[in-house]
Amino acid sequence: MQVQDSTPGVAALGLRVDGARLWDSLMRLAQIGATANGGVCRLALTERDRDARNLFVGWAKEIGCTVRIDAIGNIFARRAGACDDLPPVMTGSHIDTQPTGGKFDGNYGVLAGLEVLRTLDDAGVRTRAPLEVAVWTNEEGSRFVPVMMGSGVFARAFTLEHALAQRDRDGVAVRDALAATGYAGDVRDAHPVGAYFEAHIEQGPVLEAHATTIGVVEGALGQRWYDVTVHGMEAHAGPTPMALRRDALLVAADLVRAVNGIALAHPPHGRGTVGWIDVHPNSRNVIPGRVTLTVDLRAADDATLAAMDAALRAACADLAATAGMPIDVEQVVYFAPQPFDAALVEQVRAGANALGLSSMNVISGAGHDAVYLARVAPAAMIFVPCKDGISHNEIEDAAPADLEAGCNVLLHAMLAAAGLAEGYAR
Amino acid sequence: MQVQDSTPGVAALGLRVDGARLWDSLMRLAQIGATANGGVCRLALTERDRDARNLFVGWAKEIGCTVRIDAIGNIFARRAGACDDLPPVMTGSHIDTQPTGGKFDGNYGVLAGLEVLRTLDDAGVRTRAPLEVAVWTNEEGSRFVPVMMGSGVFARAFTLEHALAQRDRDGVAVRDALAATGYAGDVRDAHPVGAYFEAHIEQGPVLEAHATTIGVVEGALGQRWYDVTVHGMEAHAGPTPMALRRDALLVAADLVRAVNGIALAHPPHGRGTVGWIDVHPNSRNVIPGRVTLTVDLRAADDATLAAMDAALRAACADLAATAGMPIDVEQVVYFAPQPFDAALVEQVRAGANALGLSSMNVISGAGHDAVYLARVAPAAMIFVPCKDGISHNEIEDAAPADLEAGCNVLLHAMLAAAGLAEGYAR
Repeated sequence: MQVQDSTPGVAALGLRVDGARLWDSLMRLAQIGATANGGVCRLALTERDRDARNLFVGWAKEIGCTVRIDAIGNIFARRAGACDDLPPVMTGSHIDTQPTGGKFDGNYGVLAGLEVLRTLDDAGVRTRAPLEVAVWTNEEGSRFVPVMMGSGVFARAFTLEHALAQRDRDGVAVRDALAATGYAGDVRDAHPVGAYFEAHIEQGPVLEAHATTIGVVEGALGQRWYDVTVHGMEAHAGPTPMALRRDALLVAADLVRAVNGIALAHPPHGRGTVGWIDVHPNSRNVIPGRVTLTVDLRAADDATLAAMDAALRAACADLAATAGMPIDVEQVVYFAPQPFDAALVEQVRAGANALGLSSMNVISGAGHDAVYLARVAPAAMIFVPCKDGISHNEIEDAAPADLEAGCNVLLHAMLAAAGLAEGYAR
Repeated sequence: MQVQDSTPGVAALGLRVDGARLWDSLMRLAQIGATANGGVCRLALTERDRDARNLFVGWAKEIGCTVRIDAIGNIFARRAGACDDLPPVMTGSHIDTQPTGGKFDGNYGVLAGLEVLRTLDDAGVRTRAPLEVAVWTNEEGSRFVPVMMGSGVFARAFTLEHALAQRDRDGVAVRDALAATGYAGDVRDAHPVGAYFEAHIEQGPVLEAHATTIGVVEGALGQRWYDVTVHGMEAHAGPTPMALRRDALLVAADLVRAVNGIALAHPPHGRGTVGWIDVHPNSRNVIPGRVTLTVDLRAADDATLAAMDAALRAACADLAATAGMPIDVEQVVYFAPQPFDAALVEQVRAGANALGLSSMNVISGAGHDAVYLARVAPAAMIFVPCKDGISHNEIEDAAPADLEAGCNVLLHAMLAAAGLAEGYAR
């Protein structure tokens, strides 16, 4: 097969992934930790995680990949390029799951990458730059925090030593759990990455609502998380007249509305959520004396996120002054908004167009390994719909045709980024 | 001493209780189950409850009272009257406490009654009707439900057998715990009561806020308690745009405000409280899919309480329709409003006036044994201030002068109701 080393040439190759093979591999991987309800429980650095890693590594070696493991357990399956000194075009995701997770979150990104390599192997296509499929350690954070641990170390968001020292609820350290899996590698330094793509189920309802197959992900929302505490006065619900109350839950209720209003005032990407609330003493006939709640604000750019932060603090100050109750506001997490690389995003869009697939621009509301990778390499993501937008749930589902379509877009984007070796031009 | 058998005559007796003796008795009783923080832990039908009962019975017998025990363990200490066939003028309360209770809740009502009898004994005054001081079993309900168990059986709110069959968290039945105290009496039938007074700390902030010594209690609020559940859709806080959310907590927040508004719309006695809330899954970055909360509505008359019930149901229906989320409303408790006996309430007011004490009309927001007694006898209550309105707390406190004042009002009201024997008119 003779093709040009250019995007139109790549499209002209007519290459397509094998959707059935991709699906079969997803289903085989999903057997490791399969739950009775059709989901997967495969926590990071457990025996199941090890078994799943072994399965992936075996598959990668079958098609001639070399496999390297770094010191936090990230796996890099590499297919050599004609110019093998070029930084690799990388794809990947994670194969750890939530305790009641699904078959597709993370696993799809890893196996879509494998399917791309298999397809190129079948077709005998050689790329200019090498290709790599990464399996990032502990993306979910269900057993060990911080979340996105492997990609975070790779992108120097925190140190290897910090990550290795973390412990699960039973006191087991990452260092020891990792060693037990046999995936504590000796590579300590992150290698340069030429481009990073990650295919992922959307984990949200937007693509389905728009009956669109491909989400061209332009970036990831920034996040600010807060703990907010309203200090009122606990008192008996019966003997305390309305005028003499200092009901902390009443103020908290106003705050829940205010958070929603702040998000609505910053369209289209502003998001505001109160997901957790703790009422003290939480007794049916006692006026709440103290309420703590979490606030999760997200926006696509830092100016908007800063404006939302200011609005939250102003709302708390106003509510505190009006109610005569102190309100503590503590920011506990900050992730900067992360735009993806414009050229790579365009390659994803062009791939969808070339394949005749419906697509739309979307933004990732959640964190993904790609968000950390974007700190150290050009990065982009490809979303495909998941049923009812449901993820982190055993009923998580996705249509085989959509998964295949997303994988074809990944194939085209990776080829466009890596280029074809001389002699492969048509 | 020769006095008339009439209220002015009673006042003219010039009788006053011994405030120091009352205080000393309160402090002695508070030693049984005393906590390190200055409170009392004396759960119903424990050894401490038995010891406290024994102390009271001993004191009552010292002044010549006869003591009867009924089948639910209520104690009746009786001082004979000149016309001993008349139904007794009764007072009383309870000596069980919350796990972290105070020295005054309940105990004050019992020992104020004892102090009235001691005062009459010292003065050699004989009443026409007999007087009784009742100690009601398990008012608090901390160990066994239903609350106000002894007075509830006496007033036939529920049956003796029902009460005896209840079990604590360790599976111990009331029947067995009562037998172990030695206070399972053989009196099965409630005897007629001519009038019932109960002195109690207010357990609320109204008297203190008005710098008033005596609360003339006109009745007790009716109560309707509900469990309300909002059904939304659990989803990730990140990937789910505002427009596609079904956030159950947002609706619940509106409901918290609505409950407050319903109470404010029914002054002066309407009360509305959301004291307990359960958010599912209660995770920082997950939009709440289901919220259950309690609603506690109270009002002084049944028409108002019914209007508040209708307003709550209408608010839930409106919120459900607007949000497109079902809301379940289940009423789980109903106590009818209980007005006290007008003549007895007037005797309390007259007593306060005769003694030169500041007084104001109040309504009891909480349940008391007197509320059940009012179903079977004319009844009234006397409130005295407690510090900061705090009760059911180890720091519960009350001023000796206020406790003495309330006890003097009780003395006058009981004498007015019982009348003086011939030969005691001045």
